Amino acid sequence: MSLYPSWPLVARDAVVERESRIPANLRLHPEFIARYPAGSDVLGAAASSGLMSDKELQLTDPSNDATAILLAIKDKNVTAVDVLTAFMKRAAIAHQLVCCLTQVFFEEGLVRAKELDDHYEKTGELVGPLHGLPISVKDHMGLEGKNATGGFSDDLDSFISTEHAPLNQILWDAGCVFFCKTNLPQAMMHLETYSFWGQTLNPYNTHLTSGGSSGGCGALVAFGGSPLSIGSDIGGSLRSPASCCGIYTLKPTTRRLPSNGLRGCSAVPGSEAIISTCGPLARSSRDISLFFDVVLQAQPWLQHMGLVPLPWKSESITWSGSGGKIRLGVMWDDGNVLPQPPVRRALKAMVETLRKTGNFDIIDYNPKYHKELVLMAQSLYFGDGGASVRARSDAKGEPLCHLTEWVVTLPGVKDYTSHQLWEILLERDALRAKYYSHWNSQNIDVLLCPVQYGAAQPLQTTKYWGYTSAFNCADFPAAVFPTGLRANTTLDPKDTEPREAWSEADAYSAASYDPLLSNNAPLSLQLVSRRHADEVVMQALKEIEKVLPLRD
Amino acid sequence: MSLYPSWPLVARDAVVERESRIPANLRLHPEFIARYPAGSDVLGAAASSGLMSDKELQLTDPSNDATAILLAIKDKNVTAVDVLTAFMKRAAIAHQLVCCLTQVFFEEGLVRAKELDDHYEKTGELVGPLHGLPISVKDHMGLEGKNATGGFSDDLDSFISTEHAPLNQILWDAGCVFFCKTNLPQAMMHLETYSFWGQTLNPYNTHLTSGGSSGGCGALVAFGGSPLSIGSDIGGSLRSPASCCGIYTLKPTTRRLPSNGLRGCSAVPGSEAIISTCGPLARSSRDISLFFDVVLQAQPWLQHMGLVPLPWKSESITWSGSGGKIRLGVMWDDGNVLPQPPVRRALKAMVETLRKTGNFDIIDYNPKYHKELVLMAQSLYFGDGGASVRARSDAKGEPLCHLTEWVVTLPGVKDYTSHQLWEILLERDALRAKYYSHWNSQNIDVLLCPVQYGAAQPLQTTKYWGYTSAFNCADFPAAVFPTGLRANTTLDPKDTEPREAWSEADAYSAASYDPLLSNNAPLSLQLVSRRHADEVVMQALKEIEKVLPLRD
Repeated sequence: MSLYPSWPLVARDAVVERESRIPANLRLHPEFIARYPAGSDVLGAAASSGLMSDKELQLTDPSNDATAILLAIKDKNVTAVDVLTAFMKRAAIAHQLVCCLTQVFFEEGLVRAKELDDHYEKTGELVGPLHGLPISVKDHMGLEGKNATGGFSDDLDSFISTEHAPLNQILWDAGCVFFCKTNLPQAMMHLETYSFWGQTLNPYNTHLTSGGSSGGCGALVAFGGSPLSIGSDIGGSLRSPASCCGIYTLKPTTRRLPSNGLRGCSAVPGSEAIISTCGPLARSSRDISLFFDVVLQAQPWLQHMGLVPLPWKSESITWSGSGGKIRLGVMWDDGNVLPQPPVRRALKAMVETLRKTGNFDIIDYNPKYHKELVLMAQSLYFGDGGASVRARSDAKGEPLCHLTEWVVTLPGVKDYTSHQLWEILLERDALRAKYYSHWNSQNIDVLLCPVQYGAAQPLQTTKYWGYTSAFNCADFPAAVFPTGLRANTTLDPKDTEPREAWSEADAYSAASYDPLLSNNAPLSLQLVSRRHADEVVMQALKEIEKVLPLRD
Repeated sequence: MSLYPSWPLVARDAVVERESRIPANLRLHPEFIARYPAGSDVLGAAASSGLMSDKELQLTDPSNDATAILLAIKDKNVTAVDVLTAFMKRAAIAHQLVCCLTQVFFEEGLVRAKELDDHYEKTGELVGPLHGLPISVKDHMGLEGKNATGGFSDDLDSFISTEHAPLNQILWDAGCVFFCKTNLPQAMMHLETYSFWGQTLNPYNTHLTSGGSSGGCGALVAFGGSPLSIGSDIGGSLRSPASCCGIYTLKPTTRRLPSNGLRGCSAVPGSEAIISTCGPLARSSRDISLFFDVVLQAQPWLQHMGLVPLPWKSESITWSGSGGKIRLGVMWDDGNVLPQPPVRRALKAMVETLRKTGNFDIIDYNPKYHKELVLMAQSLYFGDGGASVRARSDAKGEPLCHLTEWVVTLPGVKDYTSHQLWEILLERDALRAKYYSHWNSQNIDVLLCPVQYGAAQPLQTTKYWGYTSAFNCADFPAAVFPTGLRANTTLDPKDTEPREAWSEADAYSAASYDPLLSNNAPLSLQLVSRRHADEVVMQALKEIEKVLPLRD
């Protein structure tokens, strides 16, 4: 290594390259950007930019989901080129306001879209069920010929994908169009999105984080720049951005989707103590189901070791409540960190609304073992005490971000010997068994609970992962959906009643909540079920959605 | 530790206790035993012992499978007490000739059988699909109140099960009767069965091993002393005894059956680098299917983390050959060790017979990557260089058997650091991916191949595990079935043609083959399919069986 770390130049080159790929005619004027100071809601910028036609705005509007877009292409109301043209404009605008992209390849996307249109024109046949759908992917997921980084500049040199990651290949074979990759945090281990690629902001309020680690996906989808985006989750990385950005996701049970061909699918390459899963960030719950249906119809288990051979079930679930009602458990808090006021309000409003329908058996869920699951997850992420992460930092002298440093120095993170790790794996299995038994004892179909301790937090401050990581440790599928409510300075005042903190993280959460800063952040909730009951979650969500959006 | 190791006394006490549990009226006279010197076929001893009635002999005859016994109980042709009485007699005789049991609790079994009979009498209802079926289990599988040992005397003190292992509980709930536990080798890591409990012999030829590590199960079932026995397999431990003893097994894909509640389900507790699976040793292939159907109907995945939620499929498989024929690959050898003459003869006879039926598309299978799979499995078993095994040996000063010493000093066995292990896991996954792709390229439904490099070997000599362990490494389901042929001194002469050895193991196999010693050993074959295609294996076996037994 030379005297001077090489990473600033490597990172600069990558960023310059990215910016140069934004077509000149889609660049926002500095004066336009200046209209949106820190703390702005930038969602209206696509319309006010003057860069997009009404039809393009309509086509890319978040209310127009992938299912509807695909139908419009099929019905020849629009072409794949029309669709991509509109989305690349909106993505370019989004990126210039919230820094959500890492690699931009609109022209390749247009070539693909044109080929799809020609094929459809000539044969009358769609290439597949995703014919013409623009899809963005998180930066670490392999796309042929592109870099795949895990949020370290060192990956730029060392990891150019020679082929699509298997999951991306399935989407490609189904007819999608790739056109950009999205930002992610250093080491992919923040519930925020800050890396050498830049810091992704929340389009609802640019004081706030987009969540992470799939926060580039989240911000882009929320802004309307991509109808579907593919991210991954090992501790909350799909659910945090979905929650912060008010969109949909399902973190499925592990081993349902291929996760090879990624730059990192665990914090320590090779470790299987706790593993990541890919998943979609989407505009609607039906798009989530579409995604899984398409991917699993390709029977990836025939190609990829380790996957479970379960197609996506569409048959109706039999609910276990009285008269066939859904038995819904509500976990008001996890016993470790009391959710901040906006989240408590959203959960309460949701439960009250569902109760009024009379269509749910609603019971309180005991968060037994949740603290243990959270601590166990912490011990499992970095079995080398963070050495792999530090090595990637050292390679080009790129310093660790403070949230990276924080996460690799949490209690339980140690450089374990093999024997110590085996002991922990035995403890993990015993804990999972206890949790499973506890879940069974609660006799519920699905569990409704917070996604995080708060709505989107001020930048660089998000810490406690427990509301999401517990379900990685248990390997339970968990969806996130927007309630329609937003954090509101007036409706969500800071707690004034003195209260003894439940934990250090609880004290931190209580102290850091600021109703002024959080204003306008989407309020989302999490819906969970037992391992492999991914379809149960999505079908229950379909019933719950009937009362959405909630309104203050 | 005292000056003198404690294990001989501990082991002696356990063995004395076991022998004391053989009812006095079922003890064989020393003169009777003397009729069977080393090298004898003892299968006829049940009939000639004078201890069993004709009806009991008929009931326990290996041709009378579990399915038939269950039907007889249901039809009230026999009671559960009749059935158990007959089997405990035959098991007692078996044990005195081939040392296949570890713990004997016939009286408890009789109490249970009586309860089942009373219940049936009173209610007219069977308790479940296994009502009254006597089942024996390998010593390491938890039964409430019993020791569970992994072949070390040290386990006797430390591991008394407080409940049935979950798999055993399912069998119990289905109405079975437990009556004895069966022998297994030290550390459960020989393809033989020699431990402080004694050495299990092959009932077809007591010069030979019963195979292992579930060799107690194998010898007992082959002798007729148990209609169904439950063992486990991490490198061949179900298939080796099934092969050596001429009975049926299926080593399923891992994570289909619960494997908790066992004393050891991997060679290093906690390691998941390569994991064990339980499975049945049975008299017929339909009993295997019955076992899986019953266990999976209990939906164990609702209780036990890590299991795959796949019921046992009974719908007919669509075969991929011309005109709906089964496409059968034949692996004549694995490229690493040429099978000994009896096995080559059996495989050739089987293939020729199947070819004549015209009902199979038969092609040669290329054993690509098999050598790599075998070496990888070796590296994965003992990630601590055998330290856990040595610690259990040291605890009571029980010396390592030479086959234990051999297996923990194979190439690849090292005390790896966590980082080295993670590297190996990445290599394992890459190898599995390559093997999967290779399997797909061969375009077959099932693979027919040897189970071991030879039929049952002379005691304490079995080494190379490759024909079975490759499929543990790949995690492919593999059944074993008897062809009906036996090793024959005349038909299976030693190879005389000079040949360069393919490997050290190949040289060992060639040198150690002795047509005189091996005479009468059952000749069995292995049938394999891709991961999770357990039902494919069993349905293909049903077709193959139509030509069985083969006759010289």
